[in-house]
Amino acid sequence: MAIPSLVAIQDLPVLSADELEARLRQVGAEQYHHQHPFHVMMHDGRLSRGQLQAWALNRYYYQSRIPIKDAIILSRSDDPEFRRAWRKRVVDHDGDTSQEGGIERWIRLAEATGLERDRVVCCQGVLPAIRYAVDAYLDLVKNRSFLEAVASSLTELFSRDLIALRMDCLRQHYPWLSSGLDYFTARLHQAPEDARFALQWVTGHAQTRVDQELAIAALQAKCDILWAQLDALYFAYVEPGWPPPGAFRMES
Amino acid sequence: MAIPSLVAIQDLPVLSADELEARLRQVGAEQYHHQHPFHVMMHDGRLSRGQLQAWALNRYYYQSRIPIKDAIILSRSDDPEFRRAWRKRVVDHDGDTSQEGGIERWIRLAEATGLERDRVVCCQGVLPAIRYAVDAYLDLVKNRSFLEAVASSLTELFSRDLIALRMDCLRQHYPWLSSGLDYFTARLHQAPEDARFALQWVTGHAQTRVDQELAIAALQAKCDILWAQLDALYFAYVEPGWPPPGAFRMES
Repeated sequence: MAIPSLVAIQDLPVLSADELEARLRQVGAEQYHHQHPFHVMMHDGRLSRGQLQAWALNRYYYQSRIPIKDAIILSRSDDPEFRRAWRKRVVDHDGDTSQEGGIERWIRLAEATGLERDRVVCCQGVLPAIRYAVDAYLDLVKNRSFLEAVASSLTELFSRDLIALRMDCLRQHYPWLSSGLDYFTARLHQAPEDARFALQWVTGHAQTRVDQELAIAALQAKCDILWAQLDALYFAYVEPGWPPPGAFRMES
Repeated sequence: MAIPSLVAIQDLPVLSADELEARLRQVGAEQYHHQHPFHVMMHDGRLSRGQLQAWALNRYYYQSRIPIKDAIILSRSDDPEFRRAWRKRVVDHDGDTSQEGGIERWIRLAEATGLERDRVVCCQGVLPAIRYAVDAYLDLVKNRSFLEAVASSLTELFSRDLIALRMDCLRQHYPWLSSGLDYFTARLHQAPEDARFALQWVTGHAQTRVDQELAIAALQAKCDILWAQLDALYFAYVEPGWPPPGAFRMES
């Protein structure tokens, strides 16, 4: 995402915490993937079982990389308090002895679409464009500033509403999927907790206008990454419907 | 790209140089982007000026990263002879005092489509999905084995025929572009020279069947990267024609 030249930004006033939060929420309103046509089709009940399989199989690659992303962020913090708070995310996705994690729950969602577990977990058939977008996310949290890495997680500010809507729509239009919705049930409370912490951290640590604009740009970059995944799914499995050589193919 | 499990491959016979070359050429026949519908439209004269602008502007990002890619490969070789041969590629794209390079020629192609130079060079408006694919190429040459990095360049084995066809088709269907074709004229002889060297190096250095299969898979991965770029262009500018937020938009 383009931001005005840094010289100009330095001359702009620092935003208050409320103003920065408003700018971040504006990014969500304008660029978050809740508006993507693939999601609109999903929520309207217009996706076939094969298209839902393609979605579940491809998004598994994203899900599988989330705890890696969070471990990279963990590894970049020298603040035990931050690390303790952030560690929860890894546990949420990887699970522990007392509860299964988000990755396991996503596999069960994929199984509910009719895919076999091994086919999902091996990640063969994932669209190359999905891999590139997800790997760009890992690159962002690894190589940009720590503030930007944390700010990129703020799409979770917007996910609760999308997940609540999605659960209603999936139950209504694809009742055969209902057994696979535990992932979303858990995220309904996990994501807002995580977002609250990260928002507070970002508004507290982005002390200059330049840092504030970098945080906003990082959130835009993350929205691009989510959007690009749905573009790739739509292209391969909706219209024109051309999965590239080697990718998952829907049964005809 | 999936390859059979390594245990099985180790039990397979080593391919002769001719057999390996045949396998590599087969990848081109099956997966190179000459068959992509966006190229078919281009060659049939069915792209609008705006679509050709989108192509030139987005592919500039790929072009601009080629000498970076080659410098990474240079930096990974400890063989002066190899480095001398490979250095030519950087010069071909960056130019020197006696001749302009491929990047400058690509800018003139973009200008011939009606784009302003600055708009192309700043890389704003490049589709995020194009960035991810191109950056995945840099990641490949940086992080996979040196053999795989070199093998990924072998798409140049297939580029001469595509470029020759493209030049004929561009001249026929978009005569107003003719002043911008110097890039392709130069590539007609540069690419086969480069490919010849790289093919000889790969067939000479892939001494085990495992290495041979890794080289083939690296070439497949590169074909994926080229294909994914045209998928993204097609999705954003042909059908359904949805550039994501922030990307280049065609004039209506």
